Amino acid sequence: NVNADRLWQRIQGLHEIGATGEGGVTRFSFTAEERTVKDIVSGFMRDAGLVVHEDAVGNLIGRREGLNPGAKVVLVGSHLDSVPNGGDFDGPLGVLAAIEAVAALEAAGIRTKHPIEVVAFTDEEGARFRFGMIGSRGIAGILSDADVDTHRDGNGITIREAMQAAGFDASGMSSAARERDAVKGYIELHIEQGKVLEQALQPVGIVSGIAGPLWLKFTLHGDAGHAGTTPMKGRRDALSATAEILLVIEQEAGLMKRTVGTVGQLQVHPGGVNIIPGRVEFTLDLRDVDVTVRDEVEQKIITKAQTICEERGILLQVDTLQRVAPVTCDEQLQGLMKEAATEFGLDAPIVVSGAGHDGMQFADKWPVGMLFARSKNGVSHHPDEYTSKEDCALAANVLLGTIFRFAN
Amino acid sequence: NVNADRLWQRIQGLHEIGATGEGGVTRFSFTAEERTVKDIVSGFMRDAGLVVHEDAVGNLIGRREGLNPGAKVVLVGSHLDSVPNGGDFDGPLGVLAAIEAVAALEAAGIRTKHPIEVVAFTDEEGARFRFGMIGSRGIAGILSDADVDTHRDGNGITIREAMQAAGFDASGMSSAARERDAVKGYIELHIEQGKVLEQALQPVGIVSGIAGPLWLKFTLHGDAGHAGTTPMKGRRDALSATAEILLVIEQEAGLMKRTVGTVGQLQVHPGGVNIIPGRVEFTLDLRDVDVTVRDEVEQKIITKAQTICEERGILLQVDTLQRVAPVTCDEQLQGLMKEAATEFGLDAPIVVSGAGHDGMQFADKWPVGMLFARSKNGVSHHPDEYTSKEDCALAANVLLGTIFRFAN
Ligand SMILES: NC(=O)NCCC(=O)O
Ligand SMILES: NC(=O)NCCC(=O)O
Repeated sequence: NVNADRLWQRIQGLHEIGATGEGGVTRFSFTAEERTVKDIVSGFMRDAGLVVHEDAVGNLIGRREGLNPGAKVVLVGSHLDSVPNGGDFDGPLGVLAAIEAVAALEAAGIRTKHPIEVVAFTDEEGARFRFGMIGSRGIAGILSDADVDTHRDGNGITIREAMQAAGFDASGMSSAARERDAVKGYIELHIEQGKVLEQALQPVGIVSGIAGPLWLKFTLHGDAGHAGTTPMKGRRDALSATAEILLVIEQEAGLMKRTVGTVGQLQVHPGGVNIIPGRVEFTLDLRDVDVTVRDEVEQKIITKAQTICEERGILLQVDTLQRVAPVTCDEQLQGLMKEAATEFGLDAPIVVSGAGHDGMQFADKWPVGMLFARSKNGVSHHPDEYTSKEDCALAANVLLGTIFRFAN
Repeated sequence: NVNADRLWQRIQGLHEIGATGEGGVTRFSFTAEERTVKDIVSGFMRDAGLVVHEDAVGNLIGRREGLNPGAKVVLVGSHLDSVPNGGDFDGPLGVLAAIEAVAALEAAGIRTKHPIEVVAFTDEEGARFRFGMIGSRGIAGILSDADVDTHRDGNGITIREAMQAAGFDASGMSSAARERDAVKGYIELHIEQGKVLEQALQPVGIVSGIAGPLWLKFTLHGDAGHAGTTPMKGRRDALSATAEILLVIEQEAGLMKRTVGTVGQLQVHPGGVNIIPGRVEFTLDLRDVDVTVRDEVEQKIITKAQTICEERGILLQVDTLQRVAPVTCDEQLQGLMKEAATEFGLDAPIVVSGAGHDGMQFADKWPVGMLFARSKNGVSHHPDEYTSKEDCALAANVLLGTIFRFAN
């Protein structure tokens, strides 16, 4: 069994790295906060007997050799970065629980056939560059030069530049990629971030599929002008057009059963109280487990947005930030998770993930399995995010049981 | 007559102080740009024979003595600050034309009975603190401790703190105030920022009244959450509620003949692509020459906004940033302006100002008169703001004729 107290203390302890004044944490990739949290967690990895290194895209990796040195590696992991003012569990639980799992194997003197690597992936959230799962894309071998040169943070810094500033050379990033037959599969424990487990009164769930996040950037070009002297008639106000589009997004997503559409970032230019907005930029995060449904909603939104903009004399530009396909989780791994859960007396239900996860980048190459721990009120990306100590420990034990089975 | 070439060169020359990469200028109060532009203009004032000082709120003042030393002073002025990415004429024309007017009196060896003071007022636009006409409020004696301690810029710096950093001590600001019987009246030349003069084919207009800007700040408190895992139903998205309110503002202002309503600033918190907006702040700039109409529209907007927020479970807070009453210009000064215009062969029409001006702060205490110079396409608060060299010179000449009459 895992050490429940230590797991809980470590989750609590990481809170102070990037703590905001508003109860949450902000830990963006390639920042001082990320460096600090990685240094602390690499200490935890070493304590658990792991051999630690960082790969070319900044993934923190702790390796435990298997009985069979040439055997495929079992990857287990999650992430340490956060959204702005996010919670303590989204990411850290999965990394710290994986470390506890190998520590438990170590304590029990159990060596698995396959080597195990615990990975803390670089920038899963996409909070800094509006482009996420950077570390897992690197390991999958699909992080491109275009990716690291196109996406910029709020200060205009590209991923490549941010990597450089943090001591990573993007020109060597292909060395992070793993061959198809070098990896046996990927297992992750994460908080559910939804309410299904809570409503089912179950601490742990087994994920069958993950919704695919599509991130778009809308730019509306209107005409700035004086707020006091420009009559309402004839204005080309980029923000008024935006308001209409926001309501279309809410409505179109709401018409479907499981589609969600969110505008989380919005900037007004030039941004003076007495200046009519000449330009507005905003992001759309659109998801569904069914990619056809999601892309149909996308098309409806864009068509209606174009009509709105035409009627108002506004120029509309829509750019894709990331378009991730939904993923189906591996059936064998689901079966092993079921066995492990049963061993701990749990009747782990099958759930679907509305949130994206690093495993999405691996699904074309390797079997992917995910466990969810129950979230309080389904709240996430918010300081109130919470999973109880008991649920964390139970989920970590099911993770341990799954790793033990899969790595043998 | 004024020196038309020098006036034009000086207007062009100031462009480089605070020039943005986008064709406009950004000159906020109590910044290095403001310091530079004031230093340059104080040189122009000295060249015109003025005795220059800065008062306790940072107004730059050049004084020309009158024949009668104890006589009331005639104030003439405008401002040198700008909105973000604003134009070259809004403000500078009035200051530089006033300097040209006294330079012309000097060149002609004419001394008026009343002393004349040319004033470049501190922060007319309100761009930095969302609170404008700071210098003229100081001279009117109505700038309060609450004003300088409440209003903050985008970095949380109060007016008092910004003054301090620029070398001004707000605790002594009452020394900037002028006694009621120390001032004969206030005259300003400004660009129209509207299309009335252009459509009337007239270079110069006489202002009869000024619309009163009401600036409100709306804060909507909803609930942040994960964009991927939170179903559309049951969300308390502060930005969706905002979108509805923005359309109400556009509609309610549009229903009235002359009301204008503009949302120029909007911030989304926490501002992650995959986070439902938990809080939105935006400003409303609402104006009418008829204060009753304006305040009725305000009430309609707030009532509808409250209903929208209630239906969505959003907490709404509305704060007043500034509530300036509309102003009627002095009839005697309008008469003198008419005479001066006629002298230059102009049939200056009566116009109304949709934009606010420093004179608004004086109207309860002293006669206020304003001249407008024709604006190209009515564009202002925009890099395309333009008034021709000929129109600038004609307007400056009418200003000179008005000052000459009023100061004698
Ligand atoms: N699990 C999680 O919150 N992932 C972040 C990426 C996303 O789903 O927006
Ligand atoms: N004239 C002018 O643009 N004044 C700025 C204050 C305002 O009207 O918003």
